[in-house]
Amino acid sequence: MGMVGGGRGAFIGAVHRMAAALDGEVELVCGAFSSNPERSRLSGADLYLPPERVYGNYEEMIKAEKKLPEGERMDFVAIVTPNHVHYPPAAMALKNGFHVICDKPVCFNLAEAKKLQKLVKKTGLLFALTHNYTGYPMVKQAKMMVQKGKFGAIRKVVVEYPQGWLSTRLEASDQKQAAWRTDPKRSGAAGAMGDIGTHAENLAEYITGLQIKRLCADLNTFVEGRRLDDDGNVLLEFDNGAKGILFATQIAAGEENNLRIRIYGEKGGCDWHQQEPNTLLVRWLDKPTEIYRTGVGKLYPEAEAHARIPAGHPEGYLEAFANIYRNFALCLRAHLAGKKPPKLYNDYPTIEDGVRGMRFIEKVVESSKSKQKWIRF
Amino acid sequence: MGMVGGGRGAFIGAVHRMAAALDGEVELVCGAFSSNPERSRLSGADLYLPPERVYGNYEEMIKAEKKLPEGERMDFVAIVTPNHVHYPPAAMALKNGFHVICDKPVCFNLAEAKKLQKLVKKTGLLFALTHNYTGYPMVKQAKMMVQKGKFGAIRKVVVEYPQGWLSTRLEASDQKQAAWRTDPKRSGAAGAMGDIGTHAENLAEYITGLQIKRLCADLNTFVEGRRLDDDGNVLLEFDNGAKGILFATQIAAGEENNLRIRIYGEKGGCDWHQQEPNTLLVRWLDKPTEIYRTGVGKLYPEAEAHARIPAGHPEGYLEAFANIYRNFALCLRAHLAGKKPPKLYNDYPTIEDGVRGMRFIEKVVESSKSKQKWIRF
Amino acid sequence: MGMVGGGRGAFIGAVHRMAAALDGEVELVCGAFSSNPERSRLSGADLYLPPERVYGNYEEMIKAEKKLPEGERMDFVAIVTPNHVHYPPAAMALKNGFHVICDKPVCFNLAEAKKLQKLVKKTGLLFALTHNYTGYPMVKQAKMMVQKGKFGAIRKVVVEYPQGWLSTRLEASDQKQAAWRTDPKRSGAAGAMGDIGTHAENLAEYITGLQIKRLCADLNTFVEGRRLDDDGNVLLEFDNGAKGILFATQIAAGEENNLRIRIYGEKGGCDWHQQEPNTLLVRWLDKPTEIYRTGVGKLYPEAEAHARIPAGHPEGYLEAFANIYRNFALCLRAHLAGKKPPKLYNDYPTIEDGVRGMRFIEKVVESSKSKQKWIRF
Amino acid sequence: MGMVGGGRGAFIGAVHRMAAALDGEVELVCGAFSSNPERSRLSGADLYLPPERVYGNYEEMIKAEKKLPEGERMDFVAIVTPNHVHYPPAAMALKNGFHVICDKPVCFNLAEAKKLQKLVKKTGLLFALTHNYTGYPMVKQAKMMVQKGKFGAIRKVVVEYPQGWLSTRLEASDQKQAAWRTDPKRSGAAGAMGDIGTHAENLAEYITGLQIKRLCADLNTFVEGRRLDDDGNVLLEFDNGAKGILFATQIAAGEENNLRIRIYGEKGGCDWHQQEPNTLLVRWLDKPTEIYRTGVGKLYPEAEAHARIPAGHPEGYLEAFANIYRNFALCLRAHLAGKKPPKLYNDYPTIEDGVRGMRFIEKVVESSKSKQKWIRF
Repeated sequence: MGMVGGGRGAFIGAVHRMAAALDGEVELVCGAFSSNPERSRLSGADLYLPPERVYGNYEEMIKAEKKLPEGERMDFVAIVTPNHVHYPPAAMALKNGFHVICDKPVCFNLAEAKKLQKLVKKTGLLFALTHNYTGYPMVKQAKMMVQKGKFGAIRKVVVEYPQGWLSTRLEASDQKQAAWRTDPKRSGAAGAMGDIGTHAENLAEYITGLQIKRLCADLNTFVEGRRLDDDGNVLLEFDNGAKGILFATQIAAGEENNLRIRIYGEKGGCDWHQQEPNTLLVRWLDKPTEIYRTGVGKLYPEAEAHARIPAGHPEGYLEAFANIYRNFALCLRAHLAGKKPPKLYNDYPTIEDGVRGMRFIEKVVESSKSKQKWIRF
Repeated sequence: MGMVGGGRGAFIGAVHRMAAALDGEVELVCGAFSSNPERSRLSGADLYLPPERVYGNYEEMIKAEKKLPEGERMDFVAIVTPNHVHYPPAAMALKNGFHVICDKPVCFNLAEAKKLQKLVKKTGLLFALTHNYTGYPMVKQAKMMVQKGKFGAIRKVVVEYPQGWLSTRLEASDQKQAAWRTDPKRSGAAGAMGDIGTHAENLAEYITGLQIKRLCADLNTFVEGRRLDDDGNVLLEFDNGAKGILFATQIAAGEENNLRIRIYGEKGGCDWHQQEPNTLLVRWLDKPTEIYRTGVGKLYPEAEAHARIPAGHPEGYLEAFANIYRNFALCLRAHLAGKKPPKLYNDYPTIEDGVRGMRFIEKVVESSKSKQKWIRF
Repeated sequence: MGMVGGGRGAFIGAVHRMAAALDGEVELVCGAFSSNPERSRLSGADLYLPPERVYGNYEEMIKAEKKLPEGERMDFVAIVTPNHVHYPPAAMALKNGFHVICDKPVCFNLAEAKKLQKLVKKTGLLFALTHNYTGYPMVKQAKMMVQKGKFGAIRKVVVEYPQGWLSTRLEASDQKQAAWRTDPKRSGAAGAMGDIGTHAENLAEYITGLQIKRLCADLNTFVEGRRLDDDGNVLLEFDNGAKGILFATQIAAGEENNLRIRIYGEKGGCDWHQQEPNTLLVRWLDKPTEIYRTGVGKLYPEAEAHARIPAGHPEGYLEAFANIYRNFALCLRAHLAGKKPPKLYNDYPTIEDGVRGMRFIEKVVESSKSKQKWIRF
Repeated sequence: MGMVGGGRGAFIGAVHRMAAALDGEVELVCGAFSSNPERSRLSGADLYLPPERVYGNYEEMIKAEKKLPEGERMDFVAIVTPNHVHYPPAAMALKNGFHVICDKPVCFNLAEAKKLQKLVKKTGLLFALTHNYTGYPMVKQAKMMVQKGKFGAIRKVVVEYPQGWLSTRLEASDQKQAAWRTDPKRSGAAGAMGDIGTHAENLAEYITGLQIKRLCADLNTFVEGRRLDDDGNVLLEFDNGAKGILFATQIAAGEENNLRIRIYGEKGGCDWHQQEPNTLLVRWLDKPTEIYRTGVGKLYPEAEAHARIPAGHPEGYLEAFANIYRNFALCLRAHLAGKKPPKLYNDYPTIEDGVRGMRFIEKVVESSKSKQKWIRF
């Protein structure tokens, strides 16, 4: 793996590295960790990389690695830069024969995402998008329960993602994360909706197997001087007629990272909180609610395959993130060996999820400006 | 107190009686418990009432009681019938000089509510509406914290009321509660939104002290053959610019009576679940979340005045309901004595809340049918 | 009902009155609310009692009431005084033909309890002891699940009762509750163990149907100058070989009234917290934990008979307390009518529970002073 | 790092490897993964190790690695075998100049532990013991709060460790974990008390900074045919006069790995559950309970240094385990460079903890057999 971005002071780069390292299936061999060559160099040294494989920028890295003999050069690129620097390295990597794993949202706008989609299709290379919340075992359990019809037809979905860290104008200080995420030139058309709303959208579609058909959005900017939405409420309609609510906010003072999804079907439903991810509450029409737990009882193999340690030994965010990496690595290994991907592990978000996410951003922004109630997705 | 409705097999009548009895401030002295005189008679006997004060219908009761000497006759009427039988006995009671306590929603439609509002104003009699959820101590604590500015300006309100008991077509069996609540002739223009959506609306306005200014509603009927909405999602805008979400549903399979409200302000916010009503979570921008509890530490006097027993001795639904009765009784006692109502206890929902609730029903129904996004409240 | 104790400023007297009033089965007709006749008189007036039936002391009350015609005089006495004033009024009431409902622990010491036991047997009168925690519906559900063998043989019981209100020397201020409860002349041989440890002991034996056979206790007094234990830890052995832990403490700073019991059997077990009393967690060997809830699904009739309102409408401490009163009243009604007690409601703590509680107090005090590990119960 | 044990089918070996890999500070370079050379070889291949550094047994590994040039050979040995195979490789590694990280409990018996203690002292090499629960950020926060006197003098400690996985005679099937842990020849003098009771003891002493002075234990074997205790209840007395309860059980049907500790002091206390490890409940005498969370507000630097990702991104068991490895690695790096260990990271369990753990095992076994109440630790 070669990394683009993620130098000193970044948040998500370190997450990608820990996720990649956890299972011993991926090795970081090179990187262009910053657009500042000196910072890139120092970051590489922190990571015990040989200096000759720490590059000043991604173009340099892709070119240099391509020249290395197969087996020695990186197999894929991990892109962990701000949104506006996703497409260029991803496209260049694909064009040069490197597989890609990319942070979300996939691009700066829908047009870029569609171009990338074509490129992935054309090259036949693997492309993973780190919508990491789908990597949790209990999310997979929920998905399987829906798929197997345990809850009957789905009627209602409530997905919410409250955070509070942007309750004040943090971007006015020199907080790097806040700065780029609230900057329309780097983040894209939406703020909270792009950053975390897309996670909520992706999670809802992943678990239910449904697609959003129409939506009605109300985006807000509560913090004075902020240039992108920091809050949004959305009514949803899914392709099977189910209705829903999605909200994402970064001004919910005191909230941490409280992604939650509730799904209600004819016969039962489920409830999952990211902050206590090893628990899935399962409700039934006329019997007691059950507490499904990672490692307890008979979960679906799809869920069990994504847990590492016995019941009661909590796994968290990094393990879910590592599931994306591990699955990508196992599928890549199969791909390189000319084999079919391993069934239970052929499960990670792809460019298709990326395109839907970018469309979601476009549509909520469009809807929020419109006087019309429903907008087709 | 004389009761209209609440005979054998009814649900809310017994609740009113227990709530009235709890604090020893109210005595049930007569009733017209059913439109069926025999059932009324039997119900009265169950309650150890003297037969001569168990009436065959409310008209008879009001007339007969009026003839009794003051001090002996009932002081007020409690109306616990289905919605379409709220206005007639309430109006007749007021016209005959009796105070009224009435179950919610206050009437069958907005027009009736407005007529009642005029009548209350004209007679100067007391009128209480049992939006009982505002009777909880921790709801009052939340209200006071908002009022005292602890959370700064309110930005976002999320109020939800999921139930699951109408997930199937229960009204097709002979379940009395389901039958009238899903019947447009008895329930009014809305189903779930009228029954429980109005509780959510009332609670949000009560705690925040704000009023809904605009809304955008999507009402649904998921159960085939049902004649009223059993689910609804609403975007809200409050008069201070705060935004919100309200949802109320009776098809959330496995949910009991899970009213919850979250309020987010500039500096903090709070989170209250009706199913664990003695707890109020209080979140802050940059310090640990606090668990406020009935009876613990320094609550506002307005909250403390509505708790009866020490910390850790859970009070519940009936106690909150009893707070409405107790406050009404204390204010009535003051009224009868020509005194000012006692400050801490002069706090119960009135006809004004009733009118807003009926307008809420009208507006969500109107909005749900409209292609326009926002409807003025 | 005539009440002994419970005048202005008392805690438990008001609880008994609310519990008695809730279901409309019991009427307070007279009282001797204080050993101070003036305070008794004022307390009676607060309660709207006719002055002639407010007595200066219990002896006076019992004598005067006995002279009243049957049907008019009180049927039973409720004793809500400090522990050292339980036996005298209880004995006098029984001797004069009045049934008794008494606060816990039943007496000042085991000798008194045994005398009372004989008197109850001899008179054939009804005697209820308000170990109110056994009145909760989910406690009854737990008891039935054990009884029906759902959990297999019971192996381990963990019952705990932490409070924090005596963390400081509150008795040195003029807090009435603290004063008598820490006074060996009024409270008896034990402090925390008598006040709340007996509740824990009673609950464990009630739910499991087992009896403590041996124990090993370590009682402590952490607050300087206090004259009775404020904390205690006890190892238990039950008559079937199950082992257990009981702890009760009043110096657990920040704890409210956190009675909890966990029961583990061969095939499963359960977990109940008094502070969230409508929930019973049920654990199983190899399937998900279930959340049993008051009003949800198929509970045992014994549990359902003790709930009043639908699922999700929380009932609390007063309702559980009222279950003791309601059951006692229904059994008394049957008794007076010469009928058998109603099966589902013939369930309230009796003098037998009282004797076991007093023995528990004696034994933990004895054990705590002993160097020997196990003491026979 | 070279690993002893942890081949295919083992549980804790994989945990150690993931913990070591997470932060990129430790590289697995060799191993003797099984006493079966073929299994060792296959396990090494699974881990992409070069075949020449996969050894048939630990003696071979230590000898061969010692011959490699410095910088190439392993720096330390990680021992993840059953208890009876801790001492031999640890002692040999130390004698040959290798640092050691060892799974708990440290040895088969106290005598071995003391010998190891001397060896560590004599060689001056680093020795870490993976009492991993002390690696959680909120455990460190709790420790600091006690140390800084936030809770005043500690009065009561309740530490409990219920598991349910040995509720049946699992060792009679071919479950490897159950087999050795219930075998006195491999596990040592205690079963549950050795396996998990020592974690509880270690955690209590770590957080409080106190030492157990006396104890009174009751060990039980509930599953027929089992050869070691599967349950135990212990009364504790600490060196400052605080009292406590410790229980550890593996027959608590339905429990996962529910380690919990509550600490009560004069002014407040805390409550930590391993299954929701990012939360620390903090109780106070007369103000609301606070929910301290990893990443929220101002935690002590000692806590913050052991979290990797922002608030609301849950970290779990592997991250806490990785903290032991990371700290050990940083201290080892400093040691090798002749520097002082980095202050915030010089915090991992050592041979001293190991000796106390082994003494704990000896003492609870002794106490359980004794008729005397208290046994000196």
